[in-house]
Amino acid sequence: MNPDGRRSPCYLGLDLGGTNIKAGVVDDQGVPLASLSVPTRADLGPEIGLETLANAANRVVEASGVDWSEIEAVGLGAAGTIDAARGWIVQAANLPLWNLFPIASRLGDRLQRPTILLNDANAAAFGEYWAGAGRSTESLALFTVGTGIGCGIVESGRLLEGRHGLGGECGHMNIQMQGGRRCSCGKRGHLEAYASASSLVRRAIEALDAGADSTLRSFLAEGTLTAERIARCASERDRLALRLMRETARALAVGATTVMHTVDPDLVLFGGGMAGAGSDFLRIIRILVRAMALPPANARTRIEFAKLGGDAGFIGAAGWARKSVRDLGDQRGSRRGFEMV
Amino acid sequence: MNPDGRRSPCYLGLDLGGTNIKAGVVDDQGVPLASLSVPTRADLGPEIGLETLANAANRVVEASGVDWSEIEAVGLGAAGTIDAARGWIVQAANLPLWNLFPIASRLGDRLQRPTILLNDANAAAFGEYWAGAGRSTESLALFTVGTGIGCGIVESGRLLEGRHGLGGECGHMNIQMQGGRRCSCGKRGHLEAYASASSLVRRAIEALDAGADSTLRSFLAEGTLTAERIARCASERDRLALRLMRETARALAVGATTVMHTVDPDLVLFGGGMAGAGSDFLRIIRILVRAMALPPANARTRIEFAKLGGDAGFIGAAGWARKSVRDLGDQRGSRRGFEMV
Repeated sequence: MNPDGRRSPCYLGLDLGGTNIKAGVVDDQGVPLASLSVPTRADLGPEIGLETLANAANRVVEASGVDWSEIEAVGLGAAGTIDAARGWIVQAANLPLWNLFPIASRLGDRLQRPTILLNDANAAAFGEYWAGAGRSTESLALFTVGTGIGCGIVESGRLLEGRHGLGGECGHMNIQMQGGRRCSCGKRGHLEAYASASSLVRRAIEALDAGADSTLRSFLAEGTLTAERIARCASERDRLALRLMRETARALAVGATTVMHTVDPDLVLFGGGMAGAGSDFLRIIRILVRAMALPPANARTRIEFAKLGGDAGFIGAAGWARKSVRDLGDQRGSRRGFEMV
Repeated sequence: MNPDGRRSPCYLGLDLGGTNIKAGVVDDQGVPLASLSVPTRADLGPEIGLETLANAANRVVEASGVDWSEIEAVGLGAAGTIDAARGWIVQAANLPLWNLFPIASRLGDRLQRPTILLNDANAAAFGEYWAGAGRSTESLALFTVGTGIGCGIVESGRLLEGRHGLGGECGHMNIQMQGGRRCSCGKRGHLEAYASASSLVRRAIEALDAGADSTLRSFLAEGTLTAERIARCASERDRLALRLMRETARALAVGATTVMHTVDPDLVLFGGGMAGAGSDFLRIIRILVRAMALPPANARTRIEFAKLGGDAGFIGAAGWARKSVRDLGDQRGSRRGFEMV
């Protein structure tokens, strides 16, 4: 409750991935009041997907105990390249049927709230900035390292969305100009090709095929060779696993350093499944960044794990919607006449 | 003259390099009214340098025909890592005696004007944004390719100065993680080590030492092997020179692409001595960027030469000073009480 007896506004965040939709209601400080997850069923297309999103929204608002009248705005983070102004996905590998579907305006009409579309990795970065590991900072970069590498950059409190929806696409920065590995996007030498969980497994298989001696071989044989397994074997001092983890750390350190020499944030965060590799992994990344970055960033830029885990996406989408309606309110001097959807 | 008979304000820009100081007065649209260049004499230290700057300022204001009362603010672009808030150089290879000397406040006291310090490559980028090749854009990156590689990024009309003065230090992005060439900064694999004019000459000498057949050999023998010479021999179809220029273009395209996947500007500009390599060189960079960048930036981001040449630094320093006093004026609602120096 506010001092005048009115409740603070709340925000709804949605995180639309190729497999699952996560929905959450957060308060004015970014604290989740309720959340839920439902399958996306991307194969059914965006019209049915719109129903799924709206149902998830209604169910999570009900679960939160907040009245819809208290929900000020809706943020929708989605995989892929986003046209935020038009409110649609330009291209997303995991949501191929959704391209150019006017999801922000359709969902906004449906929920009767200003609805903002943004990239899911950007949403996660804004979530960490607003309510997670970056609360005390002005600028941060978040690398979400899982099957692929998502990245988002917050600079002076604003998301760097870019002029073509490619702001913060740091998984696709080129870190190996000559003889680079092929990335999931088809280009060569990208960070993702060296540091994603999929790359880690692929590099392990290549090394085993080349005859490396390692406990990983038995896991490959029984079909249980995963990135988590490799990280665990590294912590048990398997030499191949250690080398692969160090190579991964090095590629991530190169990515971090390039962001430090481009945007120069206060903080670089690592999240996603690879964050489960633990504090030794983070320690190696830090040592490598200290050796590679220019002064004074090498000493001062903090390198940390993200804090919000899988909730970062919906929290950040909600937070970006909050910021967007507030900025618009500031411009107009009143809350009337939102035309964001 | 303004409609009310008052003249529009003018701005003084200073570009402090290790060898020369360039000073210029520009009008409210960034058009130079006068400029001059004097030797820096960096070896004499900052106290004498301060006199040199102040003398250059007074002489160029006199030459411009503008009265000092019409000069609203002063911008000082300087080589090296800058602490803009404290108004000093943290570290600059070419101005070693100037580190931590409070140049902005001392010069501001001397000239009795709000005085803003910024990095020289950032100043050049802001110059192109304000009054050069980037006039119609919101966001751009400028690579100034000479002995080293300077870079500056303007995003949504603001310089990305970074939290430790390393914003836009893209010459020191790592484009070759494994087996990278050594950069002037001592680290390995940086863009500057592959694409500066010095790197071009160094790579030519390496190829000649390894026995390459080329007209460049005679220029090496007579001591006239320069980057300009290599570019000219490439235009005359010397095979080694062509290969070296293509390698240079490739490294610059990798740098441009990484900026396009990080900040995602409207426009990437190339300036400095290497811009003299001509339109064929730019065409090759464009082709390589189109092949490397993700859609839709690969089709839409413009790749151009810079327009302002050696004037970009003082024009941009003046423009950044103009923006800084105006932003401060907007915040305070009046022009009284500047405390920028």
